Amino acid sequence: MKKLLFILSCLILTSGLWAQEPVNEELVEAIRKHGLDQSQAMKTAQLMMDVYGPRLTGSPMLEKATEWAVSQLEEWGLENVHTEEWGPFGRSWELQHFEMHAHTPTYWSVIGVPKAWSPSVKADEAEVIYLEANTKEELDAYKGKLKGKIVLVDTLRSIEEWFDAPARRYESDDLLDMANADMPTPRPRRNYNTTGGFSFNKYLWETLAEEDPIAVLDRSYKGDLGTVFVSGARTGEWGSYREEGTKVVPQITLAVEHYNRIFRLLQQGIPVKLSLDLKARYYNPDDGMERNIIAEIPGTDLKDEVVIFGAHFDSWHAATGATDNGAGSTVMMEAARILQEVIKETGVKPRRTLRLALWTGEEQGLYGSRGYVGEHYAEFPEGTYNPQSIKPAQEKVSAYYNLDNGTGKIRGVYLQGNQAVSPIFRSWLEPFKDLEAGTLTLSNTGGTDHLAFDAVGIPGFQFIQDPMAYFTRTHHSNMDNLDHLVEDDLKQAATIIASFVMHTAMRDELLPRKPLDLEEAKSEE
Amino acid sequence: MKKLLFILSCLILTSGLWAQEPVNEELVEAIRKHGLDQSQAMKTAQLMMDVYGPRLTGSPMLEKATEWAVSQLEEWGLENVHTEEWGPFGRSWELQHFEMHAHTPTYWSVIGVPKAWSPSVKADEAEVIYLEANTKEELDAYKGKLKGKIVLVDTLRSIEEWFDAPARRYESDDLLDMANADMPTPRPRRNYNTTGGFSFNKYLWETLAEEDPIAVLDRSYKGDLGTVFVSGARTGEWGSYREEGTKVVPQITLAVEHYNRIFRLLQQGIPVKLSLDLKARYYNPDDGMERNIIAEIPGTDLKDEVVIFGAHFDSWHAATGATDNGAGSTVMMEAARILQEVIKETGVKPRRTLRLALWTGEEQGLYGSRGYVGEHYAEFPEGTYNPQSIKPAQEKVSAYYNLDNGTGKIRGVYLQGNQAVSPIFRSWLEPFKDLEAGTLTLSNTGGTDHLAFDAVGIPGFQFIQDPMAYFTRTHHSNMDNLDHLVEDDLKQAATIIASFVMHTAMRDELLPRKPLDLEEAKSEE
Repeated sequence: MKKLLFILSCLILTSGLWAQEPVNEELVEAIRKHGLDQSQAMKTAQLMMDVYGPRLTGSPMLEKATEWAVSQLEEWGLENVHTEEWGPFGRSWELQHFEMHAHTPTYWSVIGVPKAWSPSVKADEAEVIYLEANTKEELDAYKGKLKGKIVLVDTLRSIEEWFDAPARRYESDDLLDMANADMPTPRPRRNYNTTGGFSFNKYLWETLAEEDPIAVLDRSYKGDLGTVFVSGARTGEWGSYREEGTKVVPQITLAVEHYNRIFRLLQQGIPVKLSLDLKARYYNPDDGMERNIIAEIPGTDLKDEVVIFGAHFDSWHAATGATDNGAGSTVMMEAARILQEVIKETGVKPRRTLRLALWTGEEQGLYGSRGYVGEHYAEFPEGTYNPQSIKPAQEKVSAYYNLDNGTGKIRGVYLQGNQAVSPIFRSWLEPFKDLEAGTLTLSNTGGTDHLAFDAVGIPGFQFIQDPMAYFTRTHHSNMDNLDHLVEDDLKQAATIIASFVMHTAMRDELLPRKPLDLEEAKSEE
Repeated sequence: MKKLLFILSCLILTSGLWAQEPVNEELVEAIRKHGLDQSQAMKTAQLMMDVYGPRLTGSPMLEKATEWAVSQLEEWGLENVHTEEWGPFGRSWELQHFEMHAHTPTYWSVIGVPKAWSPSVKADEAEVIYLEANTKEELDAYKGKLKGKIVLVDTLRSIEEWFDAPARRYESDDLLDMANADMPTPRPRRNYNTTGGFSFNKYLWETLAEEDPIAVLDRSYKGDLGTVFVSGARTGEWGSYREEGTKVVPQITLAVEHYNRIFRLLQQGIPVKLSLDLKARYYNPDDGMERNIIAEIPGTDLKDEVVIFGAHFDSWHAATGATDNGAGSTVMMEAARILQEVIKETGVKPRRTLRLALWTGEEQGLYGSRGYVGEHYAEFPEGTYNPQSIKPAQEKVSAYYNLDNGTGKIRGVYLQGNQAVSPIFRSWLEPFKDLEAGTLTLSNTGGTDHLAFDAVGIPGFQFIQDPMAYFTRTHHSNMDNLDHLVEDDLKQAATIIASFVMHTAMRDELLPRKPLDLEEAKSEE
């Protein structure tokens, strides 16, 4: 009966002609009520950031955060709440103490953040030198001279005052450009295993590890005024800091103003002394495995098929991972909560199974989502992300929805070149016109977990989000704290995503797919 | 005779037909060459900030900075370079070490800045409590409960992202408003000695001093993203921290994001532990006297008359005092250097004596400039700034020019209600039209050292300056570093001021004055 009503309401909605993608108004109304009027997004966010942040992959705090999320999802009534292993990730790391002080020309407290995976080091009034080398020969000249020193590796970065706003929302012009974007052309796949040819950077970090200075300082590569952008430590091999036994030089990124001052003093011939005390701990789990969080709302007549919605739950370490990606994780958890409430209230059960996934290891390379996809949906040859073969379960996933571009509300969807979903999404966005989320773009967007699904032929989507201060201020910075989340934006996103997920679960067919050319993928091996 | 000429020149000016205030084109050309093309402003600024900053009044670093400035001015060939005492200021202070760490819910390094005149304190994993009191009764309920605790005194401050630019230059509309401003009405004079009535804040800080908590934390009252605004410690009596024997509670201002996180954790019932180590030293000079820096370029036929140009040289302690007021001090020193070069090159000597003044104690209440004015130009009754009588030298000062509103270039002059100087300044600005400095406003501006001169009837002027990020980011913040100075703006300001100073020295008459009603001032006593 309900189904009949649903179909009828669809027919009515197809104003004029027929077969427009149906929208269930009852569901939309209930979703809006629980998502916009009775939101718990900020309550969830506050716990995730203030109490369970930062969530660096492998860290004890991520473990606690995982336990909290699991119990929270269970409390909301989700089913099959569990974690799934991926890995091995390698050793993990946690900061336990940091302070840094300058003694030239008078005392000042230096603003800086250790890079993740930096080892402990303590030094009192150590001499600072600038390593001025752009060639192997110039670098070799420093051999034997770095021990016992604190080494600057960056030049001065000039600052311009902010005559433009650091934060923004998309204007019509921006959205129009996206709406009018062409079908994307395939991007060259990243190849991390570049070999051959001399790499100065590789040589630099290998030399630094050998020469064993007290610490290496660089400056925040963007931002100013106390905002420091910082992620993982550098080593000769990209990301090898996670391998047990790799020698990592202690590395600290300074606020640009403080770095520049030290740099200028040295350039004037004024010796600079710095003291620092960095305490950090490596964690070496026996098997090096990490965990994603999975939770479900079971489907009914099509329960073997799934709709997955997720976000990465891990963060970098310098703040509490609010916009990257506590926002996305909060929104996805909130979407699950909304759907639980809506199902309870309306009695409308999803036909397909709804599956929430909170990934880890995203910041180091989408490891959690890729591990999950490798486990369930495709075989990958060692060290590549081009599938060798597809597993049967791949055909049962209608879509994967992702959120990972900060706190900004949803302005539409990146279709990742999947033209056929366009009219479907257009219909689903229709009831949220007042929430300004109407733009569909054929464009790709990258850098986050939907790519893991897209790579194996599962329709994977990241939503278009207002940029806010994401790239200018909070993304991977020491200021990615709860205060930079915007409640109304999180509520809007959770509401729209809940509706997308539920409509994906209710339609007769799976979402249309782009063709996946396994042969082509294989030929690249 | 002089008065007659003055009246005549007024008549001439009023007629608008002839005898416009003269501009010496040779001087202007030479000033532009040395100010714009051969500037040394950034070299001076770099020394003043990176090497001789911060310059908190009374601190050893201000003493070094003073020695440097004196020797720099002598090196440039200025004459009669000396310091003049004012005071007593009381004890002074210098930070020697600061670190702060949170241990809840996991380790994080807390961004904060001790308020100046906070005493040393060290604590390990101390409990934090929020002092929630708005009345005497509520506050009294905490008696006996604060010892051994770290106390929060502020509520949470919500942050909005910056959808407007933090930095700006004046637009035509802003300048037009200034140009069209009415004659200012006298402002009520500040009275620091308010008595009578219960002051909650006074009681709060007295109670805190008695109850002796480990430290009191507040949050930066504005700014975010790592920028912390901080000045002097609070006590029951405003500014009494300088009095030897005053008990000052250690006070630290936190980055708003970090304060908010601690506050929210406590509100959720999650205990927070903080460690801190603050080392600071008080300096108690025997006589408590501080020093202004004075330097001259001697005049010729009117050498007993002077043109004074100055800026305050002291700063707060949290950064290096770049925009407040290294910028102004740099510009005034550079103007002196430019004038030396111009005089050497053109052979044109100033008729009146040019006197550069770098004041100290401005941040605590314009003490340096007021001390100078009290020494040379007027008698003040104890504890007031309304002159009782005028000293003869007052009549020999043509003008005092001041710069203290950050790095922004000059857009014009605040006339402080002195209508008669308008046509004169209009002529002097004419050769700098290309530098966008053409606006004269009858308005007052306050808060800096020209007020000390204006109060005793000496024409005192502060220039209109582009606001830049002064009030949003750098003024009294931990980010007031050299990087936030804009070289082109400093060059422009030094050039224009050099020309104003020289033209003031060359004209036949002193600048016209506003009437000074000593009787009215006296009646207020």
